Amino acid sequence: MKANGAGSRFDKTLGILKAQKVDGILLNSEANVSYLSGFHAPDSYLIASKKGLNLITDFRYAADFRKKAKPPVKILGITGTIFATICDVLANESIKNVGFESRHLAFAECQALHELSKKRITWIPLKETIEHLREIKDNEELAHIRKAIRITLQAYDFIKKKLKHDMKELQVAAELERFIRLAGATSSAFEIIVASGPNSSYPHAQISDRAIRTGEPIVIDMGVTINGYKSDLTRTFFLGRINPVVRRLDMIVREAQRMAIRAVKPGALIKDIDSAARNYIKEKGFGKYFGHSLGHGVGLEVHESPSINCKNEVPVKKGMVFTIEPGIYIPGSYGIRQEEMVLVTANGVEVLSGNCRH
Amino acid sequence: MKANGAGSRFDKTLGILKAQKVDGILLNSEANVSYLSGFHAPDSYLIASKKGLNLITDFRYAADFRKKAKPPVKILGITGTIFATICDVLANESIKNVGFESRHLAFAECQALHELSKKRITWIPLKETIEHLREIKDNEELAHIRKAIRITLQAYDFIKKKLKHDMKELQVAAELERFIRLAGATSSAFEIIVASGPNSSYPHAQISDRAIRTGEPIVIDMGVTINGYKSDLTRTFFLGRINPVVRRLDMIVREAQRMAIRAVKPGALIKDIDSAARNYIKEKGFGKYFGHSLGHGVGLEVHESPSINCKNEVPVKKGMVFTIEPGIYIPGSYGIRQEEMVLVTANGVEVLSGNCRH
Repeated sequence: MKANGAGSRFDKTLGILKAQKVDGILLNSEANVSYLSGFHAPDSYLIASKKGLNLITDFRYAADFRKKAKPPVKILGITGTIFATICDVLANESIKNVGFESRHLAFAECQALHELSKKRITWIPLKETIEHLREIKDNEELAHIRKAIRITLQAYDFIKKKLKHDMKELQVAAELERFIRLAGATSSAFEIIVASGPNSSYPHAQISDRAIRTGEPIVIDMGVTINGYKSDLTRTFFLGRINPVVRRLDMIVREAQRMAIRAVKPGALIKDIDSAARNYIKEKGFGKYFGHSLGHGVGLEVHESPSINCKNEVPVKKGMVFTIEPGIYIPGSYGIRQEEMVLVTANGVEVLSGNCRH
Repeated sequence: MKANGAGSRFDKTLGILKAQKVDGILLNSEANVSYLSGFHAPDSYLIASKKGLNLITDFRYAADFRKKAKPPVKILGITGTIFATICDVLANESIKNVGFESRHLAFAECQALHELSKKRITWIPLKETIEHLREIKDNEELAHIRKAIRITLQAYDFIKKKLKHDMKELQVAAELERFIRLAGATSSAFEIIVASGPNSSYPHAQISDRAIRTGEPIVIDMGVTINGYKSDLTRTFFLGRINPVVRRLDMIVREAQRMAIRAVKPGALIKDIDSAARNYIKEKGFGKYFGHSLGHGVGLEVHESPSINCKNEVPVKKGMVFTIEPGIYIPGSYGIRQEEMVLVTANGVEVLSGNCRH
């Protein structure tokens, strides 16, 4: 991620400061800090105020970042403790009312900041700060996401030919982990799920050394990281002859997915997109076997806003990227999940992972 | 990790409750929850009181765990919200004064618990809870750690033969990620560091697609996970002829490491172990190029207590496992780090990763 684009993000952040009635916001969510500053650094903090964006980071990164930073971004190495450095910035910029990320800052950190700043600062817990800005992807972000998806699809094409009877789940993951790096990804976006046979019936199965058997569904759920941006796609593969019951479930899941994708366009309510898939699965009699939400936003985090679930009454907007991942899981027996990533366009939807199956 | 061993850990936890003057402790650090309950589950909470250990976890895991749990461990699925479930347990067990992990619980979580429990509960922030119990490894833990180390050493033997001029850092990581899974590891313990040439001069270099060149140092820092337990070992490799200056730095680092290892025995102060290595590097004139602490404990977390640094006045004890990882980094030029894992024995020290180089 380059440091540009920070300008317009900064302008929008000023609008958030105003709406939240604070002089500044202290961010410590890694994704939020990256998004606003343009720099990826763990354990860093960012103070946003009308005077600019102060990135407070370890001396290991500070020297390097300083060469690349452009206004409104300023880079500060930690001097003394992180908390003292934060309080210094707040004092220098005469910030009095500071919002902080209450779901990301630990109690002990709040306590330390509170004690150190005494009565000079009023600390205001905010459940959300810039998460909604991140929902709408710009072209640079989309380019990274498209590349992450491309590598993931290549990995699926590769592994489809490798899968065979008696191969262990961990062996499958081993080949995928190697492939994605040789294809140019920095890392996998999360621990790869390879769930075969009965393991496939658990949506969040942990990988094991179980050997795959002919005739079983094999659910693989994976993503990769490109410049901080993630992909997240699931494929259910079948080895050999497919049991007609399983084949039927797969067809239901795919049709539910198509119906949800067709429901995506600017202004469509998220709950209606979820329902498009869920109602179809219910009609077919498998409603109780689809226990998770339909999808989630993807960007700097694998799971980010918006959550695509049956209670979310928010309309989708052009530029949002999210997953559509219906599934049917028969506990202890087998499960099917198919997951695509879509982009909301001006007039409808683009299936970003569509060159594979849609 | 099996659910046994939980009994004696429970007894020791009761001692901690008494020392902290609380009726119960709410744990949410993933490693602490695993250690006390014997179950690995993300996003879970554990309430320890004299009546037992209540593991509160997602319904996805609860059914499976319930079959395996033995007293004092009880498994509770989340009903309604996680906070309501926590407050129900506290009410049922008549717990009034509850310690919580202030470095792990987010402000918003504290706030929600505080509001929900009103005046019935007094919440007491604790910076540490059972971290010191985890410092001393039992035989079962050591078996997992030894296996994790064995696979890591095998991976180093494997990659040593593969390294060649023009191979990219990411390619090296690709081969290692594949190797460790084929050798039986669940995953890598952290993102593998492969830092070649000038990249090696940054202790926390991020992996890149830089091509390795003959004559350069290549620092590889990696570990694997076995049953939740980690390894963490660094090797600095050289391709082709070594520059005499670099060779000399490597010899200094190795000698510093040997001196630190020789200083390890029950009762030795941690700061003296750190100094044994640091003073030698200083004497040789490279003190300012060794900017990090000498090591850290390893177990369910890659970095855990004790921290092996020059300020820690605590004596080491039999059963502690930690790294000894001196380094010399000449900014922008090159760096050397060698990292072993040691176990404090009844009479001295065992270099767990010793079959390779010591």
